[in-house]
Amino acid sequence: MNLKSLSTPAALIDVARMTHNIERMQHRMNALGVRFRPHVKTTKCAQIVDAQIAAGAQGITVSTLKEAEQFFASGIRDIVYAVGMAPGKLGQALALRRQGCDLKIVADSVACAEAIGAFGREHDEAFEVWIEIDVDGHRSGIAPEDDRLIAVGNALARSGMRVGGVMAHAGSSYDYDTHDALVRIAEQERAGCVRAAQRLRAAGVSCDVVSIGSTPTALAATHLDGVTEVRAGVYVMFDLVMHNVGVNDTAEIALSVLTTVIGHQEEKGWAIVDAGWMAMSRDRGTQRQKRDFGYGLVCTENGDVLGDYLMSGANQEHGVISRTSEADLDIARRFPIGTRLRILPNHACATGAQHPVYQALAEDGSVDAWPRFYGW
Amino acid sequence: MNLKSLSTPAALIDVARMTHNIERMQHRMNALGVRFRPHVKTTKCAQIVDAQIAAGAQGITVSTLKEAEQFFASGIRDIVYAVGMAPGKLGQALALRRQGCDLKIVADSVACAEAIGAFGREHDEAFEVWIEIDVDGHRSGIAPEDDRLIAVGNALARSGMRVGGVMAHAGSSYDYDTHDALVRIAEQERAGCVRAAQRLRAAGVSCDVVSIGSTPTALAATHLDGVTEVRAGVYVMFDLVMHNVGVNDTAEIALSVLTTVIGHQEEKGWAIVDAGWMAMSRDRGTQRQKRDFGYGLVCTENGDVLGDYLMSGANQEHGVISRTSEADLDIARRFPIGTRLRILPNHACATGAQHPVYQALAEDGSVDAWPRFYGW
Repeated sequence: MNLKSLSTPAALIDVARMTHNIERMQHRMNALGVRFRPHVKTTKCAQIVDAQIAAGAQGITVSTLKEAEQFFASGIRDIVYAVGMAPGKLGQALALRRQGCDLKIVADSVACAEAIGAFGREHDEAFEVWIEIDVDGHRSGIAPEDDRLIAVGNALARSGMRVGGVMAHAGSSYDYDTHDALVRIAEQERAGCVRAAQRLRAAGVSCDVVSIGSTPTALAATHLDGVTEVRAGVYVMFDLVMHNVGVNDTAEIALSVLTTVIGHQEEKGWAIVDAGWMAMSRDRGTQRQKRDFGYGLVCTENGDVLGDYLMSGANQEHGVISRTSEADLDIARRFPIGTRLRILPNHACATGAQHPVYQALAEDGSVDAWPRFYGW
Repeated sequence: MNLKSLSTPAALIDVARMTHNIERMQHRMNALGVRFRPHVKTTKCAQIVDAQIAAGAQGITVSTLKEAEQFFASGIRDIVYAVGMAPGKLGQALALRRQGCDLKIVADSVACAEAIGAFGREHDEAFEVWIEIDVDGHRSGIAPEDDRLIAVGNALARSGMRVGGVMAHAGSSYDYDTHDALVRIAEQERAGCVRAAQRLRAAGVSCDVVSIGSTPTALAATHLDGVTEVRAGVYVMFDLVMHNVGVNDTAEIALSVLTTVIGHQEEKGWAIVDAGWMAMSRDRGTQRQKRDFGYGLVCTENGDVLGDYLMSGANQEHGVISRTSEADLDIARRFPIGTRLRILPNHACATGAQHPVYQALAEDGSVDAWPRFYGW
């Protein structure tokens, strides 16, 4: 198979760009002196995770127990399930640990810690639990100075569970778009998580791991004193949201959707393509950023950005391509029916999730099908 | 399996509501004296399409050739592929027809008609082509009075293809929210499509089928004179977007996402659940409607709407539940960790697409797994 023989829509990965992105992050983590644990929720694809491990990653982060099961089956033991544990899923986590998976689970409340402890005691299993720290108020976790932090640590220790460490994710880093702001939020993430670890240790609770990360903060941090590992996911593909945040050029975006022109509304300057929101996802993450890319930025079939043409609208299997600056009344001649284009996505995690398979494009134009899984 | 034994997140279908929705639409079409051809892109699920056919539907509409292949394999012959034909997919369409599938394809330009004609002549296949009519300027199609309508008909006839009919979809009906406005756009859809058929016939081009439809216009039309069939998709589930349009009550929404509370930020009045945008989709279709439901409306595990609690934010596998009117500072006691909730979705087509399987919930609480497919 090669680029020309692919049917559309298709999720293309530019393998050279992906390799560059993996090496860029791993080199940075090596220079900062921390382990790197990629978040595989972005791709859910064995070939890509293998490339991340081969480059030096140590263990993985997952967002579902299905990801843990799939990647454990493909040979990865060291796995953090980075979503607060639902008590009803403890049986599934136990089964993984009994098979030899070094699965770590997460809690951020006494109620959750007690549920884990009760289940663990009942099944004679000392779960390794990481306590989630809230460093920026964006989602889950316990603030570093909150008394409940120690209460959770004690509740786990008291029931014989192992407090393996603390973890934080500065998700608010996606809201910034200057280097200085990213440096500040990265330091806030680092300092908050390190402080939480210090408080636990001072209270007599074990806390070996200090795990932080998001793609923007991982790329902005000036030092990581006290941190033992970093997690990041979307860096492997990058996307237009991250481009607006300021951490990648559009020429570093490894994921795109190949599509075909199927019609026009010439008077409006529209070309209609066979990729809609089913192929791009409904993600409009650039809507409130400094540049709104609609449903994606249009490139030639070979991947060259075509000025300011965007996918400005999308239905399920129809996309509308138009020029931002002024309507292109010559669009039917510029992109005749059958023209193939690539669309760079707003959000690589969301766009990838719409596709059962990635088409991995090598520099010689050949493509290889890399399956990805979905569901729970 | 029953409701209590399901792991979360899960896509639940209330089978009684679905059956009610199917019967409501089919009775209406019978009363209006037209055939009904459901759009199966909403569910891509054999059990649901079987129920639509059993209720009286004649043939189906698809948004991808993969849907055509899957449903032809399950025994449905009469299929319209309602997306403008990409010339590169004609081989795939030909293969379906050669296997006995009565596949109809769509064109809205002379360039597309000529590509179909050339391919058809080359392979000695008289494709049945429907000409897409633009009745409201929202997407694809040729305006009823446009000269290109006759040119497309002639181009197809000249090359030996069969012009089977005309089709229109008043997608702009989603932008309205009063019955009067829906009645007007329904009449505009009907009149425009009938007029296009009349012009083709007057020019000597065959045009048996006059196919229109969208869920809002199908439910609002006062008469369908000159129309032979109606297409609609989302009516089988309904959703919050359609509720804002005014065509269904929330108690008619058959699809919901079952989720579990995994944490809280009590000071903010947040509960965190294990369904995020991966389970709900990124669809924010109610954002610009009269009521913005965030990522969905919260119900009890048994399906009763819980006042004004919404999923107000979503990350990949985390949802934030909060009360719209004022922060619920008692939320950790109201929805303790482990509480199960159902979330009604903005857009049933988009939410369904995130799930490999529907869990079909019967009135006795038992559930049956109904697989759905995805991809192209």
